[in-house]
Amino acid sequence: MSNLEIKVYKNLMGANEEWAVKIRSVLKEKGVRMVNIIGSPGCGKTSLLEYIGKHGTGEKTPVPFAVLEGDVETTKDAERLNVLKIPVSQLITSGGCHLEAKMVYHALCDLDLDRIKLVVVENVGNLVCPAEFDLGEDAKIAVLSITEGEDKPVKYPMLFREAKACVLTKIDLLPHLKFDLPACLEYVKQVNGSIPVFQVSSYTGEGMDDFTRWFIGV
Amino acid sequence: MSNLEIKVYKNLMGANEEWAVKIRSVLKEKGVRMVNIIGSPGCGKTSLLEYIGKHGTGEKTPVPFAVLEGDVETTKDAERLNVLKIPVSQLITSGGCHLEAKMVYHALCDLDLDRIKLVVVENVGNLVCPAEFDLGEDAKIAVLSITEGEDKPVKYPMLFREAKACVLTKIDLLPHLKFDLPACLEYVKQVNGSIPVFQVSSYTGEGMDDFTRWFIGV
Repeated sequence: MSNLEIKVYKNLMGANEEWAVKIRSVLKEKGVRMVNIIGSPGCGKTSLLEYIGKHGTGEKTPVPFAVLEGDVETTKDAERLNVLKIPVSQLITSGGCHLEAKMVYHALCDLDLDRIKLVVVENVGNLVCPAEFDLGEDAKIAVLSITEGEDKPVKYPMLFREAKACVLTKIDLLPHLKFDLPACLEYVKQVNGSIPVFQVSSYTGEGMDDFTRWFIGV
Repeated sequence: MSNLEIKVYKNLMGANEEWAVKIRSVLKEKGVRMVNIIGSPGCGKTSLLEYIGKHGTGEKTPVPFAVLEGDVETTKDAERLNVLKIPVSQLITSGGCHLEAKMVYHALCDLDLDRIKLVVVENVGNLVCPAEFDLGEDAKIAVLSITEGEDKPVKYPMLFREAKACVLTKIDLLPHLKFDLPACLEYVKQVNGSIPVFQVSSYTGEGMDDFTRWFIGV
């Protein structure tokens, strides 16, 4: 009986990783890349995707990608992308603070992966929990709005350690904020010295071409 | 053996609530009120407390309160309050996405509750998880920065349902944002029609006197 008990715990602990392995296998088989976008509520994750969906890289419009849109409640973000003809599925966690690999796997398999070669997971708005869950992705991207303050990379280090790039959004608001940009860049470097940091505004378009080129080639 | 297994789960589930009951008992015995401030990273929770610590209500300066400062990592927020001579303890979760009642209980008991009659818990920056954990507080306060967008009350409804007040911060940035204030107020109302909504800026001081009066009398 005590074996049974241990087994239950092991299954619970390992379940996400098992599904992440399945995702990696599907991605490899189909030659699809998947990125997992993580950041606080309202940091501009959906706006980044709207911008890329509308403008591409400048040279190549539109960039073809599908989105798995994670939210605690509502289909609002999926609706925003749907009007731009971006293929999108809404993954509602019903209170859950992060996406798990099982739900992502099923949504991924429902996409037309013979045609779609880039899948973007937009995780639940949360700078803490989503960083802990492997979704089998090729890269996590840390999105930080400059309205959140320069100290967040050291206050919430796990995401920035896990990420392959950091995107500083809402850079157009810089003149209106007390935001110490050099300090923020230094904090990112302290936590993860090897990642590129893109300073962008999806409102003015500043920095978006550079980020998009990195994003589609990630 | 199957009883034992259930017991383990019950203990795990009930542990937070047991500590919350202990907190409520201490607060009642000492005649102390406790509020639990919850919002996204960088929404301005610490800045609200800095402002109240500096300015009080205008009539009554300073407002005496102690802060239990919750963070994933670093003592940065506690340091900000410490320079203002606000009694503050730093509660570091080391990766945890919310404060639990056990840690709060011990930190609370270490305060001089014969002199301090208002204790403010500043929770980990997270719009999702902290709302689910009872800390034995008299009130949760939902803090939403207008830079996060007007849709957050319906996208992350639990906190707004649990809260006894909503504070819209960074209202001074309104001219620079595409933020639909009437829609936001309507969304708060949809989720929880009974709570006051304070529109404030801890940068310009707008709305802070009203909020502070509510806050100290909560």
